[in-house]
Amino acid sequence: MHFKRRTHTCGELRENNIGENVILHGWVDKRRDLGGVIFIELRDRYGITQIVFEPTFNKESHHEAKDLRSEFVISIEGVVRKRPEGTENPELETGQIDVMVNKLIILNEAVTPPFPIRDDIDTHEDLRLKYRYLDLRRPKLQKNLLLRHRMYQLTRKYFDKNNFVEVETPVLMKSTPEGARDFLVPSRLHKGKFYALPQSPQTYKQILMVSGLDRYFQIVKCFRDEDLRADRQPEFTQIDVEMSFVDQEDIFQIVEGLMKIMFKEIWNKELQTPIPRLSFDEAMEKYGSDKPDLRFDLEMKNLNHIFHKTEFRVFKDAIDSDGIISGLLAPGCGEYTRNQLDVLTDFVKGFGAKGLIWIRVKQSDSGLELESPTMKFFTDEEKQNLIKELNAKAGDLIFILSGNRIKTLNIAGQLRLEMARRLDLIKPDAEPKLLWVTDFPLFEWDEETKRYYAMHHPFTSPRLEDIPLMETAPSKVKARAYDLVLNGNEIAGGSIRIHNSELQAKMFKVLGISEEEAQTKFGFLMNAFKYGAPPHGGIAFGFDRMAMIFAGENSIRDVIAFPKTASGISLMDDSPSFVDEAQLRELHIKVR
Amino acid sequence: MHFKRRTHTCGELRENNIGENVILHGWVDKRRDLGGVIFIELRDRYGITQIVFEPTFNKESHHEAKDLRSEFVISIEGVVRKRPEGTENPELETGQIDVMVNKLIILNEAVTPPFPIRDDIDTHEDLRLKYRYLDLRRPKLQKNLLLRHRMYQLTRKYFDKNNFVEVETPVLMKSTPEGARDFLVPSRLHKGKFYALPQSPQTYKQILMVSGLDRYFQIVKCFRDEDLRADRQPEFTQIDVEMSFVDQEDIFQIVEGLMKIMFKEIWNKELQTPIPRLSFDEAMEKYGSDKPDLRFDLEMKNLNHIFHKTEFRVFKDAIDSDGIISGLLAPGCGEYTRNQLDVLTDFVKGFGAKGLIWIRVKQSDSGLELESPTMKFFTDEEKQNLIKELNAKAGDLIFILSGNRIKTLNIAGQLRLEMARRLDLIKPDAEPKLLWVTDFPLFEWDEETKRYYAMHHPFTSPRLEDIPLMETAPSKVKARAYDLVLNGNEIAGGSIRIHNSELQAKMFKVLGISEEEAQTKFGFLMNAFKYGAPPHGGIAFGFDRMAMIFAGENSIRDVIAFPKTASGISLMDDSPSFVDEAQLRELHIKVR
Repeated sequence: MHFKRRTHTCGELRENNIGENVILHGWVDKRRDLGGVIFIELRDRYGITQIVFEPTFNKESHHEAKDLRSEFVISIEGVVRKRPEGTENPELETGQIDVMVNKLIILNEAVTPPFPIRDDIDTHEDLRLKYRYLDLRRPKLQKNLLLRHRMYQLTRKYFDKNNFVEVETPVLMKSTPEGARDFLVPSRLHKGKFYALPQSPQTYKQILMVSGLDRYFQIVKCFRDEDLRADRQPEFTQIDVEMSFVDQEDIFQIVEGLMKIMFKEIWNKELQTPIPRLSFDEAMEKYGSDKPDLRFDLEMKNLNHIFHKTEFRVFKDAIDSDGIISGLLAPGCGEYTRNQLDVLTDFVKGFGAKGLIWIRVKQSDSGLELESPTMKFFTDEEKQNLIKELNAKAGDLIFILSGNRIKTLNIAGQLRLEMARRLDLIKPDAEPKLLWVTDFPLFEWDEETKRYYAMHHPFTSPRLEDIPLMETAPSKVKARAYDLVLNGNEIAGGSIRIHNSELQAKMFKVLGISEEEAQTKFGFLMNAFKYGAPPHGGIAFGFDRMAMIFAGENSIRDVIAFPKTASGISLMDDSPSFVDEAQLRELHIKVR
Repeated sequence: MHFKRRTHTCGELRENNIGENVILHGWVDKRRDLGGVIFIELRDRYGITQIVFEPTFNKESHHEAKDLRSEFVISIEGVVRKRPEGTENPELETGQIDVMVNKLIILNEAVTPPFPIRDDIDTHEDLRLKYRYLDLRRPKLQKNLLLRHRMYQLTRKYFDKNNFVEVETPVLMKSTPEGARDFLVPSRLHKGKFYALPQSPQTYKQILMVSGLDRYFQIVKCFRDEDLRADRQPEFTQIDVEMSFVDQEDIFQIVEGLMKIMFKEIWNKELQTPIPRLSFDEAMEKYGSDKPDLRFDLEMKNLNHIFHKTEFRVFKDAIDSDGIISGLLAPGCGEYTRNQLDVLTDFVKGFGAKGLIWIRVKQSDSGLELESPTMKFFTDEEKQNLIKELNAKAGDLIFILSGNRIKTLNIAGQLRLEMARRLDLIKPDAEPKLLWVTDFPLFEWDEETKRYYAMHHPFTSPRLEDIPLMETAPSKVKARAYDLVLNGNEIAGGSIRIHNSELQAKMFKVLGISEEEAQTKFGFLMNAFKYGAPPHGGIAFGFDRMAMIFAGENSIRDVIAFPKTASGISLMDDSPSFVDEAQLRELHIKVR
């Protein structure tokens, strides 16, 4: 078990090392026996080097090498030689050389792994997660972890250079049940009391601004006890940023600087700045999403102005109830069969639509003509305006959805994505598209609980000009909030905060949070504001999602070392798990 | 509330800015009214700039400035001028200039803080913690947070440069009740099950080595639910490091590189490497501590060989029971009064000693003479040898303690520290002293539970030559474990790990952990080892303590942004706190 320090890694040797005595350590990756000679590809994190056991070169090592099997851990000494003409491997960086072994030490044996350590395998994810230590040996996952490593370093270097201070905020904090569900931690020393894990360090970063830290950042774990959707994790990583004495533009500038670096260093692309911006209203009307994918342009159109005099009941209801009529042109889809159209109708119904109006655009002698069961309700003027507004051509297909504004636009947005898939508009090599979405509504009305919720969070500042509307028409108040969207994924979101305790109190009032409740939950923050809070704002990046996109993966689990399943289980170590009764007793709790 | 972007920070303006129009933001630090002119020291994180409101320069601003009080947040525009001759302030970096204000915006008002924002105040720590946002405005705490920030960046840059991969390990993990108490997190989706917060990412970092990551590091939060001692926190920060294919020497080399950088960048000192080493046994015999403070030399001596033929019952018992007789020379203390000696006797009794032997060294005509009530038990030869061994001189005082080895040495170590304090040997400007303590015992016997515990943790490798002793004489087995000690504080500890599942099983056996229990708790790690684990080892730094020492502070609370009290309470936000019954119901738990 004694072994010497390695002279090189398995990714390091080149032709200029020929003739050198070297020591390598690594895992047996592939083994070939050829004419009494044993060839082994030795693997470590840095690469693969072929090592050769030849009986005439060293009898003892050759003899011992017969026992070697996949994933054995070995240490070898040997001499670097040029590979014989014709046996070079251009796919390996070390492919011009191999190492003739004259000493072998088996550091550890290995039983046969449950799946081969290769990228081109189709193993059930549950098995991969159970044997995560083997899965992580795969080159792709190693590459992802290294990419993530680089993204950490680039991020911190950037913020450090720009005078931001990295501050660690507590993981054991106070439960503030606004937002998602907290994970709780029972206190042993204080019976019946609990800590909560942070959903974000929101209050702490604002406190740091009150403390005069001026510019704060942290790459930090956050926690949400949600009913897990397929690609969520109960713990996730955030790049958390806060700045004092700033407006939206200052935040944008800092973030754009970071994105420029990421584009350059990770993708070797020049990001053009400023990043384009869309208001929430525009984004919804054009793309039916507050995180539109702009890698293809397929745009929806607000058709309300075309049908403002319509007698068609469906449209009239929509207009009268402050709703929307939204049109989408599907170029060249005029020949869709009735069956295909039924499938799409079911598709939108699945999202809650009552129906889908479809219209075929045809060429007739007198010009373009619209064909659809709905056409009888349209005036000629409306038809002509529709064609013009959507810039429709013969052979195209028009979809129209109408009803409640946000709901209809969301469904139209889903239809837009579906048509993009059918039309194959999202090319894998498409240029990545970043955009800012701005001017979000400050409040969202919840029908179930009959109250307003903060769309971003309760510390978000309204636009100053909208403050008077807070009491009279909360749903019309716009927030100084913004999201950064990359290829249809929200990768960051933030806002300018309320820094004034009166405005904060007003905010809580609209949210139906009583003064007493506010005092209990956020009293320390509101108190802090009394001692001289600077104007401030910030942003938080979803680091896992960002890493996923930069790595070109489709699941965040592929950029997290030890992810949990959709139901929050770690299959590797079987957590969560039952614990000793004595542990619970000490914590003054019992299971119901 | 609209304000312009600042042109400079409050620490930036110099003589070469004279005549410029500038915009500054900040807090009102000090205010002086002098002959109708208002002078304000405006403060931000970057420094202090004096701003001047003069009625003849700008009447309106001067008028508005009358309202300004301490800690108001303001934005000003003005012109930089050279301060009038004789009014320069050499204590400020901006002290050659001030700014004549022609526009003032009050961004936020402030009520009077409960204590002044100054370093030279003596405020009760509880009040400081409650108003942490104000406490953090003090220059000293801001300096500490900035130092901590720099230490983060230096650390990561160093490990990045040395090919370490930063990997985030889970915070929600499996409870493994070996070591300290876990903090538990009830699972909502899996009734009756719990996650635990990591006491350290120990198993994960070993898993990463099995995965072939080769070199891992992370600055990571860890959690221990201990009965809190004065300077412990329930959550603390660790620099966590693990390396494959290494022995102790490789770990030392990497760590010494980091320490060189810290010494240079934080203290501007050249650290000489290699860092000196002491075995655990030596450290205990010489200094009565496994984390000796070497800034002063006062050394204890093992006197067993001098008294191997003694008839003095106290010493004979110690020798016969494998104990120790330990001597300490207190130079120049021969004139201590009987009362002083009684106080010291009480001091060692407080640590559990039965008594303290003290001996005055005096000059007589025939040479040195020892004076003590115990002298009647010493032979002349023993006396002469004692004088020689301790290199005693006239006027010195000799202390002797004896009994159970570890216990006696610990008490003698406390006496050593006490004498160092009395003799004023620890100078505030003493050169910092680093050392490695090596060869720790692998096991500690616990009298109460009548079993062995792992002194480091159950994954620590024994010295290979000691493996046979594991079954026959566990207490004699030395571990491949090491601590890094700075000025008498353990700042890092680590070990070479067991990488072989057979040896691991043997380890669990000595620890009295049944196969079944081991399988439940650590099964995934032991399984991982079957698939080809490399030899590996690592170390973890207590980052808070390290930052405390580099900052020259005496409490880790002064280098943590939001610390908790000794009983785990955050006085700022009053956590832990009671939570809604509905929350507990969802988590399937109730308070007993």
